Amino acid sequence: METGRLEAFSDGVLAVAITLLVLDLHSDADARDSVGHPVPLAHQLASEWPAFGAYVVSFSIIGVIWVNHHTLIGLVGRVDRTLLFANLVLLFFVTTIPFTTATLASYLRVGGSGARVAVGLYGVSMEGMAISFTLILRHLLRHRLLRRPVSSVEGARALRRFGAGSLVYPLIAAVGLASPAAMLVCYAAITAFYIGERTSLLPDGVGNGAGDA
Amino acid sequence: METGRLEAFSDGVLAVAITLLVLDLHSDADARDSVGHPVPLAHQLASEWPAFGAYVVSFSIIGVIWVNHHTLIGLVGRVDRTLLFANLVLLFFVTTIPFTTATLASYLRVGGSGARVAVGLYGVSMEGMAISFTLILRHLLRHRLLRRPVSSVEGARALRRFGAGSLVYPLIAAVGLASPAAMLVCYAAITAFYIGERTSLLPDGVGNGAGDA
Amino acid sequence: METGRLEAFSDGVLAVAITLLVLDLHSDADARDSVGHPVPLAHQLASEWPAFGAYVVSFSIIGVIWVNHHTLIGLVGRVDRTLLFANLVLLFFVTTIPFTTATLASYLRVGGSGARVAVGLYGVSMEGMAISFTLILRHLLRHRLLRRPVSSVEGARALRRFGAGSLVYPLIAAVGLASPAAMLVCYAAITAFYIGERTSLLPDGVGNGAGDA
Amino acid sequence: METGRLEAFSDGVLAVAITLLVLDLHSDADARDSVGHPVPLAHQLASEWPAFGAYVVSFSIIGVIWVNHHTLIGLVGRVDRTLLFANLVLLFFVTTIPFTTATLASYLRVGGSGARVAVGLYGVSMEGMAISFTLILRHLLRHRLLRRPVSSVEGARALRRFGAGSLVYPLIAAVGLASPAAMLVCYAAITAFYIGERTSLLPDGVGNGAGDA
Repeated sequence: METGRLEAFSDGVLAVAITLLVLDLHSDADARDSVGHPVPLAHQLASEWPAFGAYVVSFSIIGVIWVNHHTLIGLVGRVDRTLLFANLVLLFFVTTIPFTTATLASYLRVGGSGARVAVGLYGVSMEGMAISFTLILRHLLRHRLLRRPVSSVEGARALRRFGAGSLVYPLIAAVGLASPAAMLVCYAAITAFYIGERTSLLPDGVGNGAGDA
Repeated sequence: METGRLEAFSDGVLAVAITLLVLDLHSDADARDSVGHPVPLAHQLASEWPAFGAYVVSFSIIGVIWVNHHTLIGLVGRVDRTLLFANLVLLFFVTTIPFTTATLASYLRVGGSGARVAVGLYGVSMEGMAISFTLILRHLLRHRLLRRPVSSVEGARALRRFGAGSLVYPLIAAVGLASPAAMLVCYAAITAFYIGERTSLLPDGVGNGAGDA
Repeated sequence: METGRLEAFSDGVLAVAITLLVLDLHSDADARDSVGHPVPLAHQLASEWPAFGAYVVSFSIIGVIWVNHHTLIGLVGRVDRTLLFANLVLLFFVTTIPFTTATLASYLRVGGSGARVAVGLYGVSMEGMAISFTLILRHLLRHRLLRRPVSSVEGARALRRFGAGSLVYPLIAAVGLASPAAMLVCYAAITAFYIGERTSLLPDGVGNGAGDA
Repeated sequence: METGRLEAFSDGVLAVAITLLVLDLHSDADARDSVGHPVPLAHQLASEWPAFGAYVVSFSIIGVIWVNHHTLIGLVGRVDRTLLFANLVLLFFVTTIPFTTATLASYLRVGGSGARVAVGLYGVSMEGMAISFTLILRHLLRHRLLRRPVSSVEGARALRRFGAGSLVYPLIAAVGLASPAAMLVCYAAITAFYIGERTSLLPDGVGNGAGDA
């Protein structure tokens, strides 16, 4: 019960944010090309590939965040006020994703310097999430809020693995400055990696029971 | 408690997706016809029948998905990481429904090849949901995550009945290529069938207790 | 626990629907009048009074529905499949409210026959909710799904009082055909009445414990 | 369980409202300046600073409301019908925030009398939340709905500290009439103050156990 409402509110925000992504997908039965001919729906969908790609990637990232949040908070034995506010910071970056995803999708089609700014903006959402997730873990470890004791070696290793994420995201954003499409592939790859390699996110020391939770 | 947060997040996504459908319904007090006369609201509502029809059908389908999800997850005794991600795949297709419904509704009015593409797109949402639901059931059966033992005969029958759904949806989409209105009727009919015949979705072996849950 | 997920999903839909109402409120910093002068924000807000009035009334009605739903489901001892689907019908009409409210608000400013159609459309949302709520109560009484025995006299009285609501809403809609503003006042009045007189919605026989729940 | 659904519905509304704020953030890949040149995304983001500032401030305020709501309702031992409706009034003002925030953001860029009206409108959301929160506390104290006895001295002090918030918000709005940017800073400051000084919101008498809840 201690973590009940923290989870309920987080689930609500994550569920709304992940579902609002769909508002970035559009079709327009009245769309006309430059000479006034209707644009076939198939062409519209094809030219909207950045929107679909960004949708799939952002959905996956929020989904992985939810799974990891679920696993991590499931280990929490006691909630303090700092955890509530650190969690709000994480949720803040989550709620920016529909905006940064929409911006990324529309500028990927245009290209140029706008696409690079959009890639950076999207990277801010990702990096903000990675850092606040790491800060939450650090706070839980430092103030011994987890349900079972964690040795300092275990804790340090958990933090290193989480912190690695904060280092990888800027690299992916750097890839995006050269090729936004390659960036989406990188984000998809790291997300797929986290799905298979849960121990890299919730390492042995902290996450041994996570698969059963 | 084991399945608590899985259900909470799923309920959140399903609730947001089912409610966002309403954003596809429009009226415009400033609407003018081609000669500049105001379009009476009654005419607007009449010409928007595909939007209302698609709204009712999509609402019903998400509603039935929720009832079946509720019933199936109610039988789960243990949640593993694969189930969490398989559930995310199901939710992914659910969140596409407001988009594919809006596209279907606007192209049903226009007709032609656009309507056929929109029918196919809508079918992808439906088929994706049917297949991921079947995969979830198969995973639960294979890894014995249900709360009570299920014989291999029972399990095979449950999977056959679920799998049947994955076969029926493409047929309905094929009907839609000929007549989108007939397709909406078919979707409504299969939904009504699932409401009355719960055993065809959750068969005897798995779902005997479902009516009481 | 039996009613847990029914309540969670209903709470989700009700929470999203009540919050989506805000999307009907608008201001436009670039608004110009017919001679190209900027329209002051104060004037915009004043001319948007139907939107604010409809917002307050629809928010109150969904809020009262939530309180009564909360009270009624709190009395339920056993959930069957019919209740799940009857509840979906109730939620269907709830999700139409953002649309019918927006239509009402925009046509109240225009007036004429459009306003009358909008009043009727809004009335359909209200009447649909009232009837499905009554049907849920009837199903709960008939199939003895409540946690404590209810005599047939108590049950009949409860149904009469609920059924009365289904009769009052069309009368309010009829008032709206003459004066939409008077209609909003009537809806506000009946909502205020339900707040004070909980026994008229959940009568003695059924609702005695409701105030404590 | 007594407060379960009150919290679930409130969490839902707060989660949707806090996430809908993102719909106020925009970028437009087709934006042109007055001589038809594309507007670089970086310029768009820079000129949208009021939208980002208002987003951060409103997100923080709803977040703090959620933490305090969580803490206060966690102390509630018994829910009565008045609490349900007083809570609806609080949620009503919360749901107005996406609208008043969007209006504030767009008029901060324009300035003039419109900005002053927008500041006042935003202040109404804040003041309405502060007053309804105080009324909820007063109701809980008067009708002894908290889980442990609170002396009249403790109760009076708690109400004074809460009531102080209702006095501070109009002052901040007054600052906003002179400088909207200064107002955002003030709102951010008082929010930061509430984060650090939880005792000023949930004073010793009521909130001693809040940090552990």
